[in-house]
Amino acid sequence: MRPNGLVTLLTDFGTADGYVGAMRGAALAAAADVRLVDLTHEIPRHDVRQAAFVLAFAAPAFPLGTTHCVVVDPGVGSGRRALLVAAGGHFFVGPDNGVLWPAVRALGGRTEPQVAVLTLPAGASTTFHGRDVFAPAAARVATGRCDFDGQPQAAGWTEFVMPRPVADGSGRWRGIVLSVDCFGNVITNFDRATFDDEVAPGTFRLRCGPVVTEVLRTCYAEGVADDVFCIWGSGGRLELSVCEGSAADRIRPERRGPWPAVELDFRPC
Amino acid sequence: MRPNGLVTLLTDFGTADGYVGAMRGAALAAAADVRLVDLTHEIPRHDVRQAAFVLAFAAPAFPLGTTHCVVVDPGVGSGRRALLVAAGGHFFVGPDNGVLWPAVRALGGRTEPQVAVLTLPAGASTTFHGRDVFAPAAARVATGRCDFDGQPQAAGWTEFVMPRPVADGSGRWRGIVLSVDCFGNVITNFDRATFDDEVAPGTFRLRCGPVVTEVLRTCYAEGVADDVFCIWGSGGRLELSVCEGSAADRIRPERRGPWPAVELDFRPC
Amino acid sequence: MRPNGLVTLLTDFGTADGYVGAMRGAALAAAADVRLVDLTHEIPRHDVRQAAFVLAFAAPAFPLGTTHCVVVDPGVGSGRRALLVAAGGHFFVGPDNGVLWPAVRALGGRTEPQVAVLTLPAGASTTFHGRDVFAPAAARVATGRCDFDGQPQAAGWTEFVMPRPVADGSGRWRGIVLSVDCFGNVITNFDRATFDDEVAPGTFRLRCGPVVTEVLRTCYAEGVADDVFCIWGSGGRLELSVCEGSAADRIRPERRGPWPAVELDFRPC
Repeated sequence: MRPNGLVTLLTDFGTADGYVGAMRGAALAAAADVRLVDLTHEIPRHDVRQAAFVLAFAAPAFPLGTTHCVVVDPGVGSGRRALLVAAGGHFFVGPDNGVLWPAVRALGGRTEPQVAVLTLPAGASTTFHGRDVFAPAAARVATGRCDFDGQPQAAGWTEFVMPRPVADGSGRWRGIVLSVDCFGNVITNFDRATFDDEVAPGTFRLRCGPVVTEVLRTCYAEGVADDVFCIWGSGGRLELSVCEGSAADRIRPERRGPWPAVELDFRPC
Repeated sequence: MRPNGLVTLLTDFGTADGYVGAMRGAALAAAADVRLVDLTHEIPRHDVRQAAFVLAFAAPAFPLGTTHCVVVDPGVGSGRRALLVAAGGHFFVGPDNGVLWPAVRALGGRTEPQVAVLTLPAGASTTFHGRDVFAPAAARVATGRCDFDGQPQAAGWTEFVMPRPVADGSGRWRGIVLSVDCFGNVITNFDRATFDDEVAPGTFRLRCGPVVTEVLRTCYAEGVADDVFCIWGSGGRLELSVCEGSAADRIRPERRGPWPAVELDFRPC
Repeated sequence: MRPNGLVTLLTDFGTADGYVGAMRGAALAAAADVRLVDLTHEIPRHDVRQAAFVLAFAAPAFPLGTTHCVVVDPGVGSGRRALLVAAGGHFFVGPDNGVLWPAVRALGGRTEPQVAVLTLPAGASTTFHGRDVFAPAAARVATGRCDFDGQPQAAGWTEFVMPRPVADGSGRWRGIVLSVDCFGNVITNFDRATFDDEVAPGTFRLRCGPVVTEVLRTCYAEGVADDVFCIWGSGGRLELSVCEGSAADRIRPERRGPWPAVELDFRPC
């Protein structure tokens, strides 16, 4: 797969400081013809799991040949490596802390990805590899100015695997809350590919903290007031939602602390 | 008018999740040469009126031939239709909930717009038409890959009309607060085209909740400390402002609840 | 230096309203082939110093020939002039309130910049020069449609100089907090070019309000829990940081009021 000139940017830098701007500048300085597209810069700081989740959600929407530049990088300037990965027709640049891997595995399927270690440019700072390492590298990869030929092959990288639901052998599955979006939809790790046939009206009961529901809907507007229901979300995961309301506020009214487990029960009631 | 390759994006998705990123990816996957420009993604969730206001404000600044993709869409996945509209040399793609119409009417003037129903692509999700329907359609429209020839003509669409001030017959007009910006400027529905001649120093008194003013200024820096004044805003509407302060905080100090009516009085004092 | 078609945007408009969208539209209407890149739009309103800081930090990362459009402009519509500046191979467009100058001086070095007054277009509003003056001018400059030939030369502009540390003659320097980023890193005005040799382990003691440290680290991950340390930041300034924590919260736990002075002491302990 040839790179298509597009670089997506995903960071935990926020947008109020000059950091994302400087990354964009460094990418354009490295390859004037690169095209930059933001995924988000509002990953909670150092939250590798949320960054991995967003990348795995959004990257598949991009055309083949896209390069994804991910900088959620508490280890910047330490010995942690910078990686270049190719999988499923997409390219990825980011720190060797696992953040790339849910997307790499989702896009690459059973084919093993190609993985190289990026050489740090001379004069790179020890505090801002987004500007000094990752953005220029991604821009050069995206525009065909850098590829696997020039980089040492990697081994022994850190792989982050998104947790999967666990069965207790008696028809009950125990999952987790993976993410919560700005609409208050609560996204679980029950995936449609595995559970689509089993989650049907009358066959299941889902519990998450104080909320229990046996309702599955196909669109938000079907919900009635205050009704917490299940819905297959656009990322292929079972979500808890409320029509024009927030399932998150129902599950965790005090808005802090860890999310409760998600229990999915298929035993006859 | 031929489309110019530009697509503006306007949603209530926020920027913290991967939703806007996925929309951008889907647009680029549908038409690699599309150029994406954000209006805003911070419309309060499901606030069709605020989205309509922002679209009508910002769209006229764009060159002719621009395609505007609007996704404030509580009815996603239900029977509500997806529309393609052409008016005043601009194109619009969005749900049939009225959100497009203040901009369509402002740009189209007295010429009736062209309106078609977009066919949903096979496999579209029921929860995320921004990614699966609107962004790809807008990208294809903007790059000449989709036009009115291929789509059924629409009738009976939902039209949202921005409320206008009402006269009480004795020289007093009653209007509303349309929007409040991040500087605390309070934007009313008194429009310059109608009221420019009548709103002049010594001729009017404006009341909005606890605030009363007879002052009209031409730029913010003219204001003196704590002075709430009227000013014709850049969208052609009468606004309430405070120099380096917030008119919004003066009108609604408790920062919640509905905005009071805007009363404009031309009776001799 | 020929302009390279890129325009960066830096404002205090926030991203929730339609203002930044309208600026983008006006830029594209003025020059369809301009390429727009955001620095940030979240400068605290009217905070010329923070805007100047972000511009001076981010602009140098961009390729030569880039045009930077800065709109932090409490004087909009008053007599204040609009400037076009060229320095160090970069172009700048913005109000004559000093905001451009730290970047102009950093990039231009000892060479005097070229400075012209932009003519206001007929029909410009008095409240939104971002849309009506600066964005179109920047787009035209960036694409070679406007240059210094067509504009009157400026003199007597307002220059903002970033404050520098002051020595008390006995080995103690007194500096200030220039900015605080979203990670809670506290950025001082001690610059590496001047203080690099002197700030070394065992040679210094830095005090900022309740925090005192003699520790200098080279990357964040070296820090131990709750350890406030100094680090040379990626903008070449001495910063106070905490590994996976916030130095800002340690220095100003109540999160309001002015920042304390930064005292750097080289006297033998």
